[in-house]
Amino acid sequence: MSELNRLLKELEGLNADLHEKDFLLTWDKSEAELKSVLLVAESLRDLYRNNISARCFESGLAISNFRDQSTRTRFSFASASNLLGLAVQDLDETKSQIAHGETVRETANMISFLTEVIGIRDDMYLGAGHTYMLEVAEALDDGYRNGVLPQRPAIVNLQCDVDHPTQAMADLMWLKEYYGGLDQLKGKKIAMTWAYSPSYGKPLSVPQGIIGLMTRFGMQVSLAHPPDYDLIPDVVDVANKNAAESGGTFEHGNSMEDAFKDADIVYPKSWAPYHVMGKRTELLRAKDTDGLKQLEQACLAENANYKDWECTEEKMKLTKSGKALYMHCLPADITGVSCKEGEVSDSVFERYRLETYKEAGAKPFIIAAMMLTSRMKDPVGLLGQLAKRGTVRKIG
Amino acid sequence: MSELNRLLKELEGLNADLHEKDFLLTWDKSEAELKSVLLVAESLRDLYRNNISARCFESGLAISNFRDQSTRTRFSFASASNLLGLAVQDLDETKSQIAHGETVRETANMISFLTEVIGIRDDMYLGAGHTYMLEVAEALDDGYRNGVLPQRPAIVNLQCDVDHPTQAMADLMWLKEYYGGLDQLKGKKIAMTWAYSPSYGKPLSVPQGIIGLMTRFGMQVSLAHPPDYDLIPDVVDVANKNAAESGGTFEHGNSMEDAFKDADIVYPKSWAPYHVMGKRTELLRAKDTDGLKQLEQACLAENANYKDWECTEEKMKLTKSGKALYMHCLPADITGVSCKEGEVSDSVFERYRLETYKEAGAKPFIIAAMMLTSRMKDPVGLLGQLAKRGTVRKIG
Amino acid sequence: MSELNRLLKELEGLNADLHEKDFLLTWDKSEAELKSVLLVAESLRDLYRNNISARCFESGLAISNFRDQSTRTRFSFASASNLLGLAVQDLDETKSQIAHGETVRETANMISFLTEVIGIRDDMYLGAGHTYMLEVAEALDDGYRNGVLPQRPAIVNLQCDVDHPTQAMADLMWLKEYYGGLDQLKGKKIAMTWAYSPSYGKPLSVPQGIIGLMTRFGMQVSLAHPPDYDLIPDVVDVANKNAAESGGTFEHGNSMEDAFKDADIVYPKSWAPYHVMGKRTELLRAKDTDGLKQLEQACLAENANYKDWECTEEKMKLTKSGKALYMHCLPADITGVSCKEGEVSDSVFERYRLETYKEAGAKPFIIAAMMLTSRMKDPVGLLGQLAKRGTVRKIG
Repeated sequence: MSELNRLLKELEGLNADLHEKDFLLTWDKSEAELKSVLLVAESLRDLYRNNISARCFESGLAISNFRDQSTRTRFSFASASNLLGLAVQDLDETKSQIAHGETVRETANMISFLTEVIGIRDDMYLGAGHTYMLEVAEALDDGYRNGVLPQRPAIVNLQCDVDHPTQAMADLMWLKEYYGGLDQLKGKKIAMTWAYSPSYGKPLSVPQGIIGLMTRFGMQVSLAHPPDYDLIPDVVDVANKNAAESGGTFEHGNSMEDAFKDADIVYPKSWAPYHVMGKRTELLRAKDTDGLKQLEQACLAENANYKDWECTEEKMKLTKSGKALYMHCLPADITGVSCKEGEVSDSVFERYRLETYKEAGAKPFIIAAMMLTSRMKDPVGLLGQLAKRGTVRKIG
Repeated sequence: MSELNRLLKELEGLNADLHEKDFLLTWDKSEAELKSVLLVAESLRDLYRNNISARCFESGLAISNFRDQSTRTRFSFASASNLLGLAVQDLDETKSQIAHGETVRETANMISFLTEVIGIRDDMYLGAGHTYMLEVAEALDDGYRNGVLPQRPAIVNLQCDVDHPTQAMADLMWLKEYYGGLDQLKGKKIAMTWAYSPSYGKPLSVPQGIIGLMTRFGMQVSLAHPPDYDLIPDVVDVANKNAAESGGTFEHGNSMEDAFKDADIVYPKSWAPYHVMGKRTELLRAKDTDGLKQLEQACLAENANYKDWECTEEKMKLTKSGKALYMHCLPADITGVSCKEGEVSDSVFERYRLETYKEAGAKPFIIAAMMLTSRMKDPVGLLGQLAKRGTVRKIG
Repeated sequence: MSELNRLLKELEGLNADLHEKDFLLTWDKSEAELKSVLLVAESLRDLYRNNISARCFESGLAISNFRDQSTRTRFSFASASNLLGLAVQDLDETKSQIAHGETVRETANMISFLTEVIGIRDDMYLGAGHTYMLEVAEALDDGYRNGVLPQRPAIVNLQCDVDHPTQAMADLMWLKEYYGGLDQLKGKKIAMTWAYSPSYGKPLSVPQGIIGLMTRFGMQVSLAHPPDYDLIPDVVDVANKNAAESGGTFEHGNSMEDAFKDADIVYPKSWAPYHVMGKRTELLRAKDTDGLKQLEQACLAENANYKDWECTEEKMKLTKSGKALYMHCLPADITGVSCKEGEVSDSVFERYRLETYKEAGAKPFIIAAMMLTSRMKDPVGLLGQLAKRGTVRKIG
């Protein structure tokens, strides 16, 4: 258990307080708070590897509200909830009375009487997802303050239009593990670049999450995309500000090659053009089906101008010693495997495949850490108690 | 724990026996039995507030069978199951082989081998929901008696065509709390009235549940609705009989104003015309889609004749000191919020909004109490044991 | 607890090792391994009957992946998972990103980070279901070997195109109970016959599972079906080989009457013609909707030639003393109940109805035994420990 002791000692030193706070955007959190989430996630992983139960709830619901499809985040959320002892209940809006004009304020309270955590994915509408989460948060505050709810459930952002904090934090946990410590990230260059995909309407939240988080730790973050594929300006501002404060750098250009040059890490990933995502929100709200179809065609045609934005062996040679670490939130659009032409060549992806799987493997523990730090007053004490209790997770 | 001791002492004195009995209709239960459910619900809430686990099942399924959409009852059922240690498994008839001509008798047994509770919502067809639950009950009796099932799962009615006992009992628990005791309800006037809504086909089970239950406790129950909006005659008879026995009164008229006059409590809520619900069952069975559309139009047109059946500030002034408690099972159709013209004005609803949320908050504990009293031989002993065991519900 | 001791003693004597192995086909398993699964299932049932918790996981997911509809297997899987302490998470491919070209290899890893068991039903395509399970298995091996997964989840075949081992093993457990021991099955004649049904496309896996398993225990297995309704030739070979090795017999003909003659047990059940199932796979892959409709019509017309393949009172008279045990995996197509003309007459089915329900009741324990023997190194030790621990399953 010496590994756990080391983690808890460091956690104690940070003295961060995430109790009763939602996890919506990484840039709402202090460096100490982000480091705490990592340390709690690592502690939970350590308990898991030592076959010690991390169950700290005897009962309680963890509600998942997926307003877009999901596999890995869905299973990561389920795993995290289950690890802590919570039962997952899906809020399927098609099976509920929410369509009947019920307010967000009301629904948020109605589902929360014995609820500890609410995980929300709402990434389809630019300008809507984060706003929705704030609305739910306010409703929960109101219900808790007024005695409707016996506890204030924590909201965990499972991807909105602005950030994808469980992904970005899992990526950070993976990088910390890969390089042997957060301090090892200082000065490392990460290229967050657009990549071609024959698909339409991918959210901007992954690249935004990466530039918003990796600039916190003294990294040299290089964002590159074709001209029309900008990110939300406010998030780019956040990245600039973060880099200045952390002693890192933030570059922003339109050349994949420049971004890859001497990079330690590359993260090539498709997203939709900014103006398309804005237009799409309008059309979706107006229920303009024809307009949406036309927009999709126009967007795919625009994408097709940038088929050379593929992570090939040749481009990988531009990176530091030709050996940058390839990252992806998965599923990647792999040329010749999942599509004809895509984000990454088959051979590059295959060489880093297991690394991307390990990257994904951090997510259940990150989500559990977000839940635990929000719902528990004293994570250090709790984790120590769990270790001391030593209940076997799997007998035999 | 003195509050719990007080509750358990009262519970013991009632000497009620709900063991191995389903909870389908409140009027099938004695006064002592209804009081017992309230006391068990209050005991579970007390344990919850004191952070003591009420888990009394190490394993076992709680099956939910929603034949109509639901949010708050779905989450209340999930919360109640989880509180006692049961895992929810949804019987989604679209994903099963039930459409393949399988009998209710067979399905009921097939899903019940390791099942403790079955919750059913079946409120769409007048003359069908309660009948279906009886059919399931008979099948379970048959299976248990003949050694197919190692235990007899309890059926909890999560709303049928006749009664909505989890709602009515939660409402009663809320009134008991609000007024400080069941005896405080004696002589209080409650107006259960129809209200306008631009929606179609709302079940009759809430008003039926309210008049069938509130007449048990010496209240002055006043039912009012437009001429064609009658309830099932048998239930009205039950209300009359109950009132006579409990020393209360039961009035039945066609004026919202008369019902509101001097009321301590108002419960304005829309439901479909009786003849429409009867016709609808026929058309649904005949799969007459065109007929159903015509019926919906006719029903909405009929509704529109009674737009003045709205719970306005003006009507609230008719109530006792103008300060009657407003109740609703939620979601309410709020004028200017969830619809153009609805059951209640925005300002009235907003003034009582938190009260309606608290009213809803009783439901998880009521459902858990129904489960516990049906599955456990000695609730007093069990609850005492849980308190003595003192397992912490949420560590840290 | 002497019953449990007896079971564990026998289990220990078998010295079988199912640890870390998937359960895909019964004929991949040795006789000792099959007997071990039965004994573990019986031990779990004994613990259940004695109200002792079999919970051996404090956390962990059990994933269900139903690519075809299911009621009893779905609930059996949920019950088994819950019995051992695992939380069920459904992999609903319509709600996931799998449609986006994600590989099986990737998905298998992405859902498995904290997963102990994956149950798969994939029985629609001849030549596809078993292949898919092998692909998932290989992906899990790869992920586990390379440090992506902290444990190797067990795959349980919940019905594929080749075998339906949870059904066949539950049937065997039922026969063992019914006749008082596996040795009592030696020499008993079981007629596995086709039967008429007005339905289309029923898988071949139940009859294949039955002939593949029952030939292991010295039974006289008689398979009969109309000319075009052959089973997969490889499986028929397996049955022949098994019978030769176990001292049983395997007959294969085209007369229901011959098969029923002097049978101790009859298992009349419909399935699709072999050539139809092959053609269907092609059409499904080609997404040829019109072709599929035509095939369905042709198949139903072909079925209709064999309406006399019904298990009637008259045919039952041919069996041993006219009293053969009737078996079915359910739901049966009962003449005059679930269809106009079907697999079995109402009176025959009704006489054996409770027996078929008890047959089905073995399945949750069989699935739990498959999970436990695959995930746990020392089932004898574990079961003994559970009994010694003696945690009450249901308090009060």
